[in-house]
Amino acid sequence: MTAGFVLKPKDTIKLKETFLKIKKVFESRNIEVLIDSVSAKAIGLLGVEFNDMCEAADFLVALGGDGTLISLARRSYKFNKPILGINAGNLGFLTDINPDNIEEFIDKFLKGEYRIDERMVIEVEYKDKKLYAFNDIVISKEVISSMIHIRVDTNESYLNTYYGDGLIVSTPTGSTAYNLSAGGPVVYPLTEGFVLTPICPHSLTQRPLILPSNFVLEIEVKENFAKLVIDGQEIYNLDEKIKVKKALNPAKLIHRVERNYFDVLRKKLHWGDGK
Amino acid sequence: MTAGFVLKPKDTIKLKETFLKIKKVFESRNIEVLIDSVSAKAIGLLGVEFNDMCEAADFLVALGGDGTLISLARRSYKFNKPILGINAGNLGFLTDINPDNIEEFIDKFLKGEYRIDERMVIEVEYKDKKLYAFNDIVISKEVISSMIHIRVDTNESYLNTYYGDGLIVSTPTGSTAYNLSAGGPVVYPLTEGFVLTPICPHSLTQRPLILPSNFVLEIEVKENFAKLVIDGQEIYNLDEKIKVKKALNPAKLIHRVERNYFDVLRKKLHWGDGK
Amino acid sequence: MTAGFVLKPKDTIKLKETFLKIKKVFESRNIEVLIDSVSAKAIGLLGVEFNDMCEAADFLVALGGDGTLISLARRSYKFNKPILGINAGNLGFLTDINPDNIEEFIDKFLKGEYRIDERMVIEVEYKDKKLYAFNDIVISKEVISSMIHIRVDTNESYLNTYYGDGLIVSTPTGSTAYNLSAGGPVVYPLTEGFVLTPICPHSLTQRPLILPSNFVLEIEVKENFAKLVIDGQEIYNLDEKIKVKKALNPAKLIHRVERNYFDVLRKKLHWGDGK
Amino acid sequence: MTAGFVLKPKDTIKLKETFLKIKKVFESRNIEVLIDSVSAKAIGLLGVEFNDMCEAADFLVALGGDGTLISLARRSYKFNKPILGINAGNLGFLTDINPDNIEEFIDKFLKGEYRIDERMVIEVEYKDKKLYAFNDIVISKEVISSMIHIRVDTNESYLNTYYGDGLIVSTPTGSTAYNLSAGGPVVYPLTEGFVLTPICPHSLTQRPLILPSNFVLEIEVKENFAKLVIDGQEIYNLDEKIKVKKALNPAKLIHRVERNYFDVLRKKLHWGDGK
Repeated sequence: MTAGFVLKPKDTIKLKETFLKIKKVFESRNIEVLIDSVSAKAIGLLGVEFNDMCEAADFLVALGGDGTLISLARRSYKFNKPILGINAGNLGFLTDINPDNIEEFIDKFLKGEYRIDERMVIEVEYKDKKLYAFNDIVISKEVISSMIHIRVDTNESYLNTYYGDGLIVSTPTGSTAYNLSAGGPVVYPLTEGFVLTPICPHSLTQRPLILPSNFVLEIEVKENFAKLVIDGQEIYNLDEKIKVKKALNPAKLIHRVERNYFDVLRKKLHWGDGK
Repeated sequence: MTAGFVLKPKDTIKLKETFLKIKKVFESRNIEVLIDSVSAKAIGLLGVEFNDMCEAADFLVALGGDGTLISLARRSYKFNKPILGINAGNLGFLTDINPDNIEEFIDKFLKGEYRIDERMVIEVEYKDKKLYAFNDIVISKEVISSMIHIRVDTNESYLNTYYGDGLIVSTPTGSTAYNLSAGGPVVYPLTEGFVLTPICPHSLTQRPLILPSNFVLEIEVKENFAKLVIDGQEIYNLDEKIKVKKALNPAKLIHRVERNYFDVLRKKLHWGDGK
Repeated sequence: MTAGFVLKPKDTIKLKETFLKIKKVFESRNIEVLIDSVSAKAIGLLGVEFNDMCEAADFLVALGGDGTLISLARRSYKFNKPILGINAGNLGFLTDINPDNIEEFIDKFLKGEYRIDERMVIEVEYKDKKLYAFNDIVISKEVISSMIHIRVDTNESYLNTYYGDGLIVSTPTGSTAYNLSAGGPVVYPLTEGFVLTPICPHSLTQRPLILPSNFVLEIEVKENFAKLVIDGQEIYNLDEKIKVKKALNPAKLIHRVERNYFDVLRKKLHWGDGK
Repeated sequence: MTAGFVLKPKDTIKLKETFLKIKKVFESRNIEVLIDSVSAKAIGLLGVEFNDMCEAADFLVALGGDGTLISLARRSYKFNKPILGINAGNLGFLTDINPDNIEEFIDKFLKGEYRIDERMVIEVEYKDKKLYAFNDIVISKEVISSMIHIRVDTNESYLNTYYGDGLIVSTPTGSTAYNLSAGGPVVYPLTEGFVLTPICPHSLTQRPLILPSNFVLEIEVKENFAKLVIDGQEIYNLDEKIKVKKALNPAKLIHRVERNYFDVLRKKLHWGDGK
């Protein structure tokens, strides 16, 4: 069995020891460990080119925070491999295995005691490219002080023209990210649907909207100086219509059997803290 | 073919003429017209007992506003008959046929040119009763100035304890009703899911939450002086746990083929009005 | 010097020991201690009638939580005496002296090392009564499922007719109470103004509104089955117009010199907790 | 008497006829008409340099929309001249005189039948500059996908560190502009205070905050790649602490005696439209 590792891109050097410890644990269980060449370089090792690693691995491992896992899920989308998130810092919404518990978990994993959570992915067609988002895509104004008009059509018909700072189209997974800051609802990850949340809309009657996941959206900005942001990590100039739909394959997250979404939610959102 | 009519309970007498006109149109197309005894009495006619009418009718007709249709959908739930809403006043989210266009519509209807929209219904088990909600159920404080604790569990596990004025559990259809006033999102009716929206929550971190429609919720109020409100129309004292799930059958709404949800949404929410 | 005590009305007996300890501290500094007859009875002592106590005392003491202090401020309004809040439980927005620090504080107090914070009070004229609110007045629907129309006029002119579950008129002090749950802003206590926040408004364009404190508001409910709630503690049936203005005298709160509003705010609202 | 005109900078040529008509009306009443050189050039005339015009004029006139008036108020701040807004398009919050009614208004104006509304202005000290904002200042992230930390101190003490897309500090006048889109409250213009509204805050407990107008704020961004935006019209790179306070002089707006803020508010916010 082969595992392919990606490490948090910031302060990667601090993760060297943790990585080597996990590598030892894996290898002692006959799991071959690959590491992508960029992560490897940052900690003074030699690695494998990212795509080659994804192809060779049976499963992928993100060692870092939620951002590291999201980036890995997006970049490895076409390889359709399950992903394990090992949390190198604070509790994440996605990365729930602690480095200290890795031995315990990996033994269960090898006995089949784990869960695969399938998470909806967004596919964006823009010009000749296909882009994949695990959390959200954001259509945003470019210049700080100018609002934009964002027209959305569905396969059903014309939906609305949003006017304001931008529009977030989020997966259920991404609902607890930027969507929440912009006033959108929390959506349980196994719900099927898109969340459309306007950013600082000029009209007070614009509100977050949930659409079924089998809708195809066409989104166009009137002003021709907007940005398209994928998972808060990739930025494109947006000067043509985009097509947004549910990607054919979901992302597959490896979790502890006993992992519970609501426990994480309550902790991360400080529910129970009162006012 | 037989149609069973219910009329708006308020100022019913004003609808007499409209009802008689529609009745004539229906009968001229060999559709037998029944009217429920309460509506009938209000306009000086003789009618049929509600349950008998639902059993005998091939489809049911609500002549009134959205409230009339919601009440009919809830009360006729177990008969599982399709429902046509004829709008006796302002544009509704649900009743889209105008009395003036009834001839035109009914001819199309008889030729099979119509649509059935299936709408998720909520089933509530409370004590020995099964209650059905088309829009929403509300768990609400009773006394004006005392907040309540509302504990929600899912089949998955403990979800949260809401503290505040109450909690709305809404269907997608009901998302544009009380849910919207309380800060919840709009949910496209064909999305499958529950919307849980706290009313004036004490904690600022409580937010609207979308759950998959196959979840079973158990809801309990600590204080024992709460109310359970079904579709804003039926009120119960709440002193035991309730179980909330998606009802086995959806409500079936008869619509014009060309009816478009987003057109209605934009008009009703004044989208496009700017600020 | 004479102090007049009121104790938290719930579980008062638990405060007996604390009260006696504070009494001893006060008396050892030649401060005479009175206790109102209702509080006294709850802990098995003899007390003084509330109004007589207010008249006799140089300052009043609320031993309990914010609710105890708010009630004392409202009921003693006409006596215009400074109030000290001793916090018998969790940190309050208003009661910032801990029973453990009372000796230290009272010595500073006697040396003049304290602060008086003046807090705006609301005066409501309703029928032949004058009512005083320290936090807020709420105009609320009575029946759980029926919204009400609330017309507000100012000395300037017609303002608006709110339609929904109710309307909060809050002082800056009350802005962190019910107003915050209903979506209103935090208002620094020394700001002069009213906060008008609609509760679950039917229209999405209704928003919290700040008015200058020298405005006189006239508020009337169309439906004649509404409630008027003062500080969440007194409830009246509302069937006539009310007049709302800033009361002539502010409430006067005794605080430690070093007390800081923002420290309290950050702690109470969990600012700094992240998401 | 001398009037100094500024015209809407966009499509200025369309206003030529209106300007000439108004000029004729003014001159027929012995009011000398100056026009600033930039506006003049845009309609093929010769004008006066802006500062010279402000000095020479007894009052200034903005012919355009609210944006034109705001820009004029800001740029002419140090001359402390009253400003008349003539509305060249849709109803504005600020410009309430219609070109068609200018004759009628100017006759009243010359008889002293008008009102001066004093509006609080914000003064920002940044490096060696003093900047003036009529509506708001915005501290904003620069790069689309990176949030910023914004630390705010008051003369009182440390207030809070906001983390998110940015922070709006608005005057009461500016409360109906960007502040409203970001979820802030409406503040009656004659209220004295600052409105601090976070833009898409990461923490759900961050809320709009009203501070007294006599506070002095110090605002600093940790990240050193933020922007400072004045009235949505002037943009600065922000890499040092700024000091924000109420400017010494208010802006003075000339209005019809019968002008009513709430009438404008209800119309602009579509109050009364229902949901």
